[in-house]
Amino acid sequence: MTSDATRPLAGVRIIEISSFVAVPLAGMTLAQLGAEVIRVDPVGGAADYHRWPVTDAGDSIYWAGLNKGKRSVAVDVRSEEGQRLIARLISDSGVLITNVAGRQWHSYDTLVALRPDLIHVEVSGRADGGTGVDYTVNAGLGFPLVTGPAGLDVPVNHVLPAWDVACGIYAALAVTAALRHRDATGAGQRISIPLENVALATAGNLSFLTEVMVNGTPRERIGNSIFGQYGQQFASGDGVAFMVVALTGRHFRDLTELTGTAKAVAALGETIGADFTDEGDRYRHRDALTGLFTVWFTSHTADEVAAALSTTSILWERYRSFADVVTDAKVTENPLFTTLDQPRIGEYLAPGLPLSIDGAYPKAVAAPALGDHTADVLRTILGLGDEELAGLFESGTVA
Amino acid sequence: MTSDATRPLAGVRIIEISSFVAVPLAGMTLAQLGAEVIRVDPVGGAADYHRWPVTDAGDSIYWAGLNKGKRSVAVDVRSEEGQRLIARLISDSGVLITNVAGRQWHSYDTLVALRPDLIHVEVSGRADGGTGVDYTVNAGLGFPLVTGPAGLDVPVNHVLPAWDVACGIYAALAVTAALRHRDATGAGQRISIPLENVALATAGNLSFLTEVMVNGTPRERIGNSIFGQYGQQFASGDGVAFMVVALTGRHFRDLTELTGTAKAVAALGETIGADFTDEGDRYRHRDALTGLFTVWFTSHTADEVAAALSTTSILWERYRSFADVVTDAKVTENPLFTTLDQPRIGEYLAPGLPLSIDGAYPKAVAAPALGDHTADVLRTILGLGDEELAGLFESGTVA
Repeated sequence: MTSDATRPLAGVRIIEISSFVAVPLAGMTLAQLGAEVIRVDPVGGAADYHRWPVTDAGDSIYWAGLNKGKRSVAVDVRSEEGQRLIARLISDSGVLITNVAGRQWHSYDTLVALRPDLIHVEVSGRADGGTGVDYTVNAGLGFPLVTGPAGLDVPVNHVLPAWDVACGIYAALAVTAALRHRDATGAGQRISIPLENVALATAGNLSFLTEVMVNGTPRERIGNSIFGQYGQQFASGDGVAFMVVALTGRHFRDLTELTGTAKAVAALGETIGADFTDEGDRYRHRDALTGLFTVWFTSHTADEVAAALSTTSILWERYRSFADVVTDAKVTENPLFTTLDQPRIGEYLAPGLPLSIDGAYPKAVAAPALGDHTADVLRTILGLGDEELAGLFESGTVA
Repeated sequence: MTSDATRPLAGVRIIEISSFVAVPLAGMTLAQLGAEVIRVDPVGGAADYHRWPVTDAGDSIYWAGLNKGKRSVAVDVRSEEGQRLIARLISDSGVLITNVAGRQWHSYDTLVALRPDLIHVEVSGRADGGTGVDYTVNAGLGFPLVTGPAGLDVPVNHVLPAWDVACGIYAALAVTAALRHRDATGAGQRISIPLENVALATAGNLSFLTEVMVNGTPRERIGNSIFGQYGQQFASGDGVAFMVVALTGRHFRDLTELTGTAKAVAALGETIGADFTDEGDRYRHRDALTGLFTVWFTSHTADEVAAALSTTSILWERYRSFADVVTDAKVTENPLFTTLDQPRIGEYLAPGLPLSIDGAYPKAVAAPALGDHTADVLRTILGLGDEELAGLFESGTVA
């Protein structure tokens, strides 16, 4: 292990057999923490190798985004010889992360016979063994029925695959905790992470399930309001949308002062018997409050609204499009982003790990092309000679 | 450290000074991995202590959900004596996680003088030092403008605070990686995680930002369709909504066979020159395909649809409400959930850590009441005597 604090997993080698979001994100995160991550794919690529968005030439921007800083090995995974090579790589490396379940040749039981202290992390769809992806898991959970404007009567899916993202970071955490345990005890681990369980645990931890169990009252569809707090969307006079959040008494007082409604809010409270120092009452009477505040927002331009909000403690943000964001200082002047020259895709601002260690963000590193490291990995890790390698390439066992 | 694989962080003690979602989730996750996590709160509780949902008696179901398995110490954080006690606790424990930024007395610089190998993790709003919460960060990022039915012209916030969740798991990962690094090198770390950077990095990694930079084309609002794939919402004849996803050629063939549209789809492909073995073409022509498939869904009941889909490789799920979920086998027969007797709240099914280690899920443990462990922690960790303790309680320095 090096003493570089930004690479706490230096010296660890991890084999990844994956596709789509969760496990690729886990592998990339572990690579950003200093591990050597080798993604092993079928010759021609896994099911995500051409995933949209793609460039005009057809190269996957998506794939490049989730495989930054990894090494790539391409193997004919249907051939026994290919399977044996990968099993040797896993056995030598000691850590496998995968979402390709149900393959006997890289199951925990098969591999632990080769490497007794193996750390084996498998992401699956559902705890009961069923298949599932972010979009089906989310549909089955409840969120789409309470997302979107009040009164809407169709489900609204999230666009961010939030469960995949959470699952990927949990997987990186599981590997890191298992490494620490193995360092101390010499023992490996078999870890299973059903995507649906990540979603269910989160919905339970955040009370979406528990409030039904305890109070019998499920969450309702409340548009862009924040449940249990005062948080609301407003539009400025020139039609720009803002999200405004008052979590604390101070935030709320600032909001009434800014909008010149302190007296009106006090009078409203008296009339209806509400105590607006209480977050529950601010939530219960949010529509009346929003009615009072709206006048100020619609009588100012977006720039005036932004300038005025900036002088207060209120939490707020202007709604922005992705196109707005990429030219905003939050990207262009953010040390999280560095210019990446990504082969096949081009030059762009790419994020590194979203946490700084001793003041530095681990930087984005380009993604490989499929098979970029096949020869080097087989030569240096498995010790194959030139002749043997040439034979494997010729027979199509590797590429 | 014990040799219990399900408690890889056993023997680690962590002090948490937090409120709301991200850092409480980080602390709870670390506790579920075996660490002793002591949440230190102001007397009377932090800003999240009464957060909704609450029981009829006013106790926060929300707070209980995110602080399971922690110990609780209540201290007058405005008093110098209280601050000194907490600083001693952190110094003795060696790890602090917090989202209470800008307090000199628990800043990295102050504390590292007391504990040179300190691991100090601070979650903030924005990388530029500005404040931010999940709902404002999300508004500023782009997702709300592409969420919801095509044609809608208002932003749609997510209901799940996805950035808080991701940030919390990243924080748990950062602590765990730093522990491994400290074990090996003896060095601590100062880690900073701006919530907005978690969101920006994720939007970059998943190409929402990169496709604008590279192709100049931002994502559009496409309702419940999955971008770049064939994934769509359908309604059965009796009005139940289903999410149906065909990621691979096999999934798509199964869908055309199930719906009896194989010939019609082939004819459509010929007519418009589309190659439906290509995921891009399945996405481009999704509306035409959905039109063909819809007939089958609307001419079957929900139960018939579910039974038929079950016999195929297609990824699918029935949209469910939170109320549906809590009585479903995915909760009631899932080893992730165990019956928790939570003081003040009642008995309910609570999720543990959403990953199993060697076949076992680390189980949910009840959340403390505020100050449950104040006396014990001060006595056993700081070595305070009965008299000193009594004085601190009497003066209101602790509670």
